[in-house]
Amino acid sequence: MKISIIGIGLIGGSIALKLKQKNVTDFVYGIDNNIENLNEAILLNIINEKADLETGIKNSDLIIIAIPVDSARKILPKVLDLISDKQTVMDVGSTKYGIVNSVKDHPKRDRFVAFHPMWGTENHGPKSAIAESFSGKAGVICNREESAEDALQIVENIVKNLEMHPIYMNAEDHDVHTAYISHISHITSYALANTVLEKEKEEDTIFQLASSGFSSTVRLAKSHPEMWVPIFKQNKENVLDVLNEHITQLRKFKSALEKDNFEYIEELIHNANKIRGILDK
Amino acid sequence: MKISIIGIGLIGGSIALKLKQKNVTDFVYGIDNNIENLNEAILLNIINEKADLETGIKNSDLIIIAIPVDSARKILPKVLDLISDKQTVMDVGSTKYGIVNSVKDHPKRDRFVAFHPMWGTENHGPKSAIAESFSGKAGVICNREESAEDALQIVENIVKNLEMHPIYMNAEDHDVHTAYISHISHITSYALANTVLEKEKEEDTIFQLASSGFSSTVRLAKSHPEMWVPIFKQNKENVLDVLNEHITQLRKFKSALEKDNFEYIEELIHNANKIRGILDK
Repeated sequence: MKISIIGIGLIGGSIALKLKQKNVTDFVYGIDNNIENLNEAILLNIINEKADLETGIKNSDLIIIAIPVDSARKILPKVLDLISDKQTVMDVGSTKYGIVNSVKDHPKRDRFVAFHPMWGTENHGPKSAIAESFSGKAGVICNREESAEDALQIVENIVKNLEMHPIYMNAEDHDVHTAYISHISHITSYALANTVLEKEKEEDTIFQLASSGFSSTVRLAKSHPEMWVPIFKQNKENVLDVLNEHITQLRKFKSALEKDNFEYIEELIHNANKIRGILDK
Repeated sequence: MKISIIGIGLIGGSIALKLKQKNVTDFVYGIDNNIENLNEAILLNIINEKADLETGIKNSDLIIIAIPVDSARKILPKVLDLISDKQTVMDVGSTKYGIVNSVKDHPKRDRFVAFHPMWGTENHGPKSAIAESFSGKAGVICNREESAEDALQIVENIVKNLEMHPIYMNAEDHDVHTAYISHISHITSYALANTVLEKEKEEDTIFQLASSGFSSTVRLAKSHPEMWVPIFKQNKENVLDVLNEHITQLRKFKSALEKDNFEYIEELIHNANKIRGILDK
């Protein structure tokens, strides 16, 4: 199988590495506006050749869109315009309602499978790509009933070879759940970094005192705005909803501290501790 | 050197393991209200013998207090009452002003060295102890001028053998900096866990969709209230100060989202990204 990957970054690159390792593909075309990424990806054996959109698509059985969600939404209709009924298109974006909606009336809608692998890091670019990234994680397929059976099977086979377990969801539910479980973590982490940068003017002190706990909580704050601003834009209502709840939760700590109500703080912490039971099942 | 460790948990246990590995001590007495912890610590070769407070102290050159900061503050004057001028006492607590203040007029104040190793995990108990925990991290010594020169040297030698780099600070500054860099991370993480538990009623969905990003940000929310409520209590004013700033930072995201001001969100994220340069020096 020949594959075109649009966007040879962390996710696109990691998928290419894994699918080559599993012999799912013998040839990967890399399509990217960033020529440095492409050259690096060739050196790292992530792609076989760089291509323009038309050439890549013409020669591929599967086209994977792995660019920020706003650009993905724009490019998808063009990609569908260019393919035949034998080709399949998938994306890997963190929001799903917008992209699914953008092609709902496209005559080749059924060649597209909306996908979201639940993995990422704060790093970017082909250098950060890791073949084993996805193993054991969830791979969400949205609105499966809008995809052709053979297109769905091709993507399910990709999910299997990425060693992910597939989860099926409609796009609206996906965006609600990811706002809760993924998008809010990024805002929390960005806001925590900005808090510390605002309060702690001695950078050396941050560097010297930063424990593994702080580094862990603030890790996502290294994630790039090119990826995350479009996610917040496309999932605005859900993100706002959970952000309001998060501010409410922080105000509970604040108000309990102000009133020396340490019994209530203990209760809040006991409740938060439940996350251990859920995550460490 | 014979050592008594009061509180054989994550920190006390990890110190014991490392100091044995480095042959700094050939005998560790474990003192703990929790008899299960003591028995487990013997089985794991963390301590040589369990002891009561009087017996342990009488037979030790160095006494390490590794219990929650409220209990540490209560026990320290009693420990100083029991020791001779040849013995040394150190603690490992996450807040320093309260404990230093509690013995400032004690006739044996100079036998005590206030210490805080900048390491911890969300786990607890002797089972979680790891010899290599502290390596490469900062070990903060507070108010060194209030300790006798020989007591200070003994603790500095412990810090060296834990493979930490010593940092000297006064207790008040320590509590300000740790509120910024450590204590707020825990509140953020607790509040994030409570947010997700409030919004996402489908526990299976949390379990299935939780990515490494979410797990990382919420990791500290597994930390126990027995340790953290006393820290927030002792460092209330500093924690409130930084918590107010954190809520302000989150409100910036909220207000920008509400107004579709994505340029400002980009700016906020760019600023947060600076944490990479500081942490990855």
